[in-house]
Amino acid sequence: MLNVEKNPDKLLRPGGTQEPELKPAEISESLQSLSIRESTFICEPTPSPADLPAQIRKAFLRHMVSELPEQVQNRIRALKLNQLHQVRISEQFYREVYELERRFYGQSCAVFDARKNILNGIVEPPLQKDDSFWPETQSDSLNLDLENNEELRELRSRIPPVPADTLGVPRFWLTVFRNVPLLSELVQEHDEPLLECLQDVRLGYDQDSYTVSFQFRPNGYLHDTSLQLTKRYFLQHSADQEYPFLYEGPEIVRCEGCHIHWRDGFNLTLQTVESRRRRSPRFKVMPRESFFRFFSPPQAMDLSLADEKTKQILSSDFEVGFLLRTQIVPKAVLFYTGDLVDSLNESGLENGSISEVEGEQEQGQ
Amino acid sequence: MLNVEKNPDKLLRPGGTQEPELKPAEISESLQSLSIRESTFICEPTPSPADLPAQIRKAFLRHMVSELPEQVQNRIRALKLNQLHQVRISEQFYREVYELERRFYGQSCAVFDARKNILNGIVEPPLQKDDSFWPETQSDSLNLDLENNEELRELRSRIPPVPADTLGVPRFWLTVFRNVPLLSELVQEHDEPLLECLQDVRLGYDQDSYTVSFQFRPNGYLHDTSLQLTKRYFLQHSADQEYPFLYEGPEIVRCEGCHIHWRDGFNLTLQTVESRRRRSPRFKVMPRESFFRFFSPPQAMDLSLADEKTKQILSSDFEVGFLLRTQIVPKAVLFYTGDLVDSLNESGLENGSISEVEGEQEQGQ
Repeated sequence: MLNVEKNPDKLLRPGGTQEPELKPAEISESLQSLSIRESTFICEPTPSPADLPAQIRKAFLRHMVSELPEQVQNRIRALKLNQLHQVRISEQFYREVYELERRFYGQSCAVFDARKNILNGIVEPPLQKDDSFWPETQSDSLNLDLENNEELRELRSRIPPVPADTLGVPRFWLTVFRNVPLLSELVQEHDEPLLECLQDVRLGYDQDSYTVSFQFRPNGYLHDTSLQLTKRYFLQHSADQEYPFLYEGPEIVRCEGCHIHWRDGFNLTLQTVESRRRRSPRFKVMPRESFFRFFSPPQAMDLSLADEKTKQILSSDFEVGFLLRTQIVPKAVLFYTGDLVDSLNESGLENGSISEVEGEQEQGQ
Repeated sequence: MLNVEKNPDKLLRPGGTQEPELKPAEISESLQSLSIRESTFICEPTPSPADLPAQIRKAFLRHMVSELPEQVQNRIRALKLNQLHQVRISEQFYREVYELERRFYGQSCAVFDARKNILNGIVEPPLQKDDSFWPETQSDSLNLDLENNEELRELRSRIPPVPADTLGVPRFWLTVFRNVPLLSELVQEHDEPLLECLQDVRLGYDQDSYTVSFQFRPNGYLHDTSLQLTKRYFLQHSADQEYPFLYEGPEIVRCEGCHIHWRDGFNLTLQTVESRRRRSPRFKVMPRESFFRFFSPPQAMDLSLADEKTKQILSSDFEVGFLLRTQIVPKAVLFYTGDLVDSLNESGLENGSISEVEGEQEQGQ
């Protein structure tokens, strides 16, 4: 953090001083020697609790507090009680932020209607100017060896060519889901024909929950009465009673799927397999993985009482619900084009990316 | 994501079906075999662009778009233009969130006044009940070997004992700074005596900036006219013109320190060293690292034009400014006690921590 070189005049400030006075030439000389032998002026870092791993630091600090005189510990207790008032104020703040989000979602509906109409060939947009006014970033111009890289060649071969006379943007939502790590994990190959029929994904806000709706066009898998599938996420706006100090805004605490009315024999979450056991019927219906399991999450009214596996499934499900609400629905086209790439699931290898979805948020309190 | 075991009834749903009908006993049998040979039902993951590293995915997707028929590409351009309307709506949303934060900060001032009064011995709180109603987490009860671990012993030895008749909570803010990685890096050993005199840290909100104020009690380092030091952070509320789609709320774009009026000979950002050069004066004033350099950041009106070193210094400075506003000022006591541990600077070793400052935010749009 030595930034002296940028502001050499700062050296001159301390007015009439006990420190030896410097003439300008000497200052420039000492600045020069600073850049040459900078290391001699960098102090040894002072050991501090911040260097400890978080869990050990926590225990160490708790121990340090317990060693304080009883009077001082009493003041710390009073400060923590005082902090609970701050938590109550934060709860109210985040409640209003959520209401604001809800109100602004209403304002965005015209934008999402326009998107739906273009995607599904209902509206043909006028000829657009070239988008070259959005400059390419370094990675955009990355030279991809599409012919010789096997992984890229395979990915490309999996995407059917689009005929010139097609309506709208075919496979739009499926492509978005395939481009985003958390969502792509959920999609199986056998889900793709139905996901190609997905026309729109929208949100509906309630005070203590929001619903993600998936609208399909008529197809051979879903009964016509079941073309809109929904997933509802319930929010807890107040701080956790046991851990009030960890409060950072409303949390998803529960979700609810919907019944899917499949056409006979086209339930994508089931498969028929040949039995290997003697004395069993020759064919058996077995469950299989499918995106559409997303609409029948495990039930847990109280997450803290659920078993580990359920907790894991639901915590990943809640992440998906959060991603759909905050990123996918509002910005779908950017995940289609690659203007945004969700790097949630990636290692730190590419921490230079400026477009991480989990980038700095500017709204905490 | 096979959650079938939780909801075996889902298997029964597909009504009159081309799939062979199952009797309940057979279902329980097939569920049993599922758990035994689960792997046979987990489909091969389908390769998808989500598996590519973010930068390569970006380039791959851009390439895929460029291969679409011109008509379809035109629709994508129209969708991106449409998305710009959404960015404009987001800007307005985040502006209102910021105004909300500003308004709620006003509501919190009574809480922060109470904190200041207790910390500085102005108010003695009544005897508090034991805080045992806040349960210990697993890590709190971690058995620390304070006597035999050299690192912990050294850390402990650096913290002077607190006499029973002390006023308030001595070294409170210094301790907080020492406990938080990003801040601790800034604090040098020679800064500590002055940071012990820090009485309060507060925020002041303006429409396009906020100011962090550091209030010191009279001391031997700072002139009495310089007991309040300030750092101002300027916000850009609108999306970046070049990268409008990366917008995630206001960004810090510039900061401004303040002049520090040091007492003669006590400027902590300078040191006197013996010259090693012949024909030079025997003593020289040289810059040295210090927390107080925080108040003279390098100037850069346009960050994109700054050199790499300045960018790096400022980006770290902006992070500190963000942390002070969103975490340290509102929740200082929790960083003192270890109830919150900022694990920003840590590797993924401890991703089980529930109290990460960068935890899930619930306010995106």
